[in-house]
Amino acid sequence: MRIESVDFFYLAMPEIRDIGDGSQDVLLVRLRAGDWTGWGECEAAPLVSIAAWICPKSHSACKPVSASVLGQQLETPEDIRRINRLVRENSLDLLQADHTLSGVDIAMWDLLGRRNECPVYKLLGYSKSYPKLAYASQLFGDDSQETFQKAQRVRSLGYRAAKFGWGSFGKGDAEIDSEQVRAAREGLGREADLLIDAGTVWESDVVQALTRLPVLEDCRVRWLEEPFVSGALAAYRQLAAQCGRVKLAGGEGCHNFYQAINMIDHGAVGYMQIDTGRIGGITPAKAVADYSENQGVTFVNHTFTTSLALSASIQPYAGLRRHVLCEYPVESTALARRLTTQMLEPDGNGELSLPEDPGLGVTPDLETIREFLVPVEITVNGRPLYQTPSP
Amino acid sequence: MRIESVDFFYLAMPEIRDIGDGSQDVLLVRLRAGDWTGWGECEAAPLVSIAAWICPKSHSACKPVSASVLGQQLETPEDIRRINRLVRENSLDLLQADHTLSGVDIAMWDLLGRRNECPVYKLLGYSKSYPKLAYASQLFGDDSQETFQKAQRVRSLGYRAAKFGWGSFGKGDAEIDSEQVRAAREGLGREADLLIDAGTVWESDVVQALTRLPVLEDCRVRWLEEPFVSGALAAYRQLAAQCGRVKLAGGEGCHNFYQAINMIDHGAVGYMQIDTGRIGGITPAKAVADYSENQGVTFVNHTFTTSLALSASIQPYAGLRRHVLCEYPVESTALARRLTTQMLEPDGNGELSLPEDPGLGVTPDLETIREFLVPVEITVNGRPLYQTPSP
Repeated sequence: MRIESVDFFYLAMPEIRDIGDGSQDVLLVRLRAGDWTGWGECEAAPLVSIAAWICPKSHSACKPVSASVLGQQLETPEDIRRINRLVRENSLDLLQADHTLSGVDIAMWDLLGRRNECPVYKLLGYSKSYPKLAYASQLFGDDSQETFQKAQRVRSLGYRAAKFGWGSFGKGDAEIDSEQVRAAREGLGREADLLIDAGTVWESDVVQALTRLPVLEDCRVRWLEEPFVSGALAAYRQLAAQCGRVKLAGGEGCHNFYQAINMIDHGAVGYMQIDTGRIGGITPAKAVADYSENQGVTFVNHTFTTSLALSASIQPYAGLRRHVLCEYPVESTALARRLTTQMLEPDGNGELSLPEDPGLGVTPDLETIREFLVPVEITVNGRPLYQTPSP
Repeated sequence: MRIESVDFFYLAMPEIRDIGDGSQDVLLVRLRAGDWTGWGECEAAPLVSIAAWICPKSHSACKPVSASVLGQQLETPEDIRRINRLVRENSLDLLQADHTLSGVDIAMWDLLGRRNECPVYKLLGYSKSYPKLAYASQLFGDDSQETFQKAQRVRSLGYRAAKFGWGSFGKGDAEIDSEQVRAAREGLGREADLLIDAGTVWESDVVQALTRLPVLEDCRVRWLEEPFVSGALAAYRQLAAQCGRVKLAGGEGCHNFYQAINMIDHGAVGYMQIDTGRIGGITPAKAVADYSENQGVTFVNHTFTTSLALSASIQPYAGLRRHVLCEYPVESTALARRLTTQMLEPDGNGELSLPEDPGLGVTPDLETIREFLVPVEITVNGRPLYQTPSP
């Protein structure tokens, strides 16, 4: 069978708030081949990723992503890998292509899983999916009191690990940051895992990061996430050497396999975080998971949106037993919570298991798509190149 | 003064051919502040870079590039650096943002140069601009005979260095590649510098690259460019260790400062090639030039389009005497040749000097803009977010 159509649905909350909550919009991908349909999701900036699908060609190595996908044979995982290579080659100079490819790649895996009546992780070669310890992923409160309450709340919900990030953390007084971290630890209690996300706030400034280190060690923080931007390898390596028991985590910004493994080889991260909605989908994420396993680095998913993105982000390391944590967004918008007809949720023990249903094991809800749909029209040279399709 | 408007003009040849010629379209940027106008250019995929300028916000770290530019104070080079940091921070998760920023950054430098009545390189801190040895940059011929003729032609035009790349090179029989390289050397004669561009054809396959090495050494090729994709640091390093007198060149795909310096620190490239139309403009390119100088690596511009892009790409290392080569496209389209009212050209000795006129020293031709303009309309939620402005 061949890929007959790929449709993009740009969904958004009625109001987009100026906070680090990535679940406020969604770019949903529907891919059809033969009698089958698969679904995927691209992370962030839906309009730009749509443009990368349909833009006119600039030259032989700068074609729209659609040029390497539509009409391609899709029968086996090797076809998906071949299409990945085609996109990278034909869209080499189209920067956004990797984000667009991400949703398309996920949809291809979902489709093959549905057709073969097996979960994606089995197509990836795993015989079994191990439950992951879901960490409650959320933003810092506006002050330490609110952070304390947020921590208490997720602990009472049964989570055994939690992450706090963004907000004002790292931008001002180190003392205020310390209060925030202490409040998080206090709210969680002694036992739960605590993770801190700096959201690239120090760009590559190791000294700034070091001033926050004592409180992280004191509060037994498992990892400091993204102290720096993804490519700042020297800063990562320098900080890692002084971090003691606190490990560094990073990688969500990587949009291809090589950027990710460079953070292992030269950035000395302890946790490799990959967002399948950005790196090019499940295909390169699986390759990074394998590399992490070989190098003794722990792979973790990065995700902050829907159950569809969550499932896609866990498949690449579902069968790697040693890699036990998984990100679980606990403050998602109504759009993100309602995108799929079923929501993936941790069990009473705080553990998340992938569904055993075919493909990603979740299906978008057409009602939700209709409710949050943002119509888009792109016309070039008088020709309509894109018009939001009918759900 | 404050940035009042930024206009994007998507220009394209009537027909886009399926060859590696990046001069077939142009995304021209016009930036206005106070009574002044500056011009810039983004490399490749114009529609997608326009979308990154106007897309709706996804969250606090995924805003359109315009959010960090419009209304900003623009008086000094430090303002440009500040705006660069703002864009990187506010558009962290918008992949295409770096390409959009590139043209905007170039236009800001051009504007400040015009206002201060000095060339951009002086604003960058150089007291003098050294002439560069222009290498004639072109695609391989369809066969070795055509390559031979192309080499002879540029030699007869006075070029003392030439590069051949893309086409079928690296994709098939190593023997055919050898014939191509030998034909290039023969056509150029013994004295001229010969450079070969593999256009990332081997992705990260060192063995494939090694099979081409003997003919490169035999023909005294100065550099092998982009044997691999930009991030494949381990492959670059392994190949560099076995390359003998042939140096590796790369970096045109880097879209920020860190990716570029990683190719120096971990990829062992001998020549660092930066495209100001991709890396985020003149600001990060200057930082990479400084880093290259400190590390003993030779900086070279990457450019394949107009005189405007060419001038922008040379400013960052104009005052670095040791870095003598510069890329000069010799097969540009009519659009690229006619974009500016004056064309930068090498002198009879094959050397190119930057203009001493204010800013970039070149000005777009309104007639050309009108002739090649591609009208674009983007509508989201019934609201027109972008409409091609009047030149």
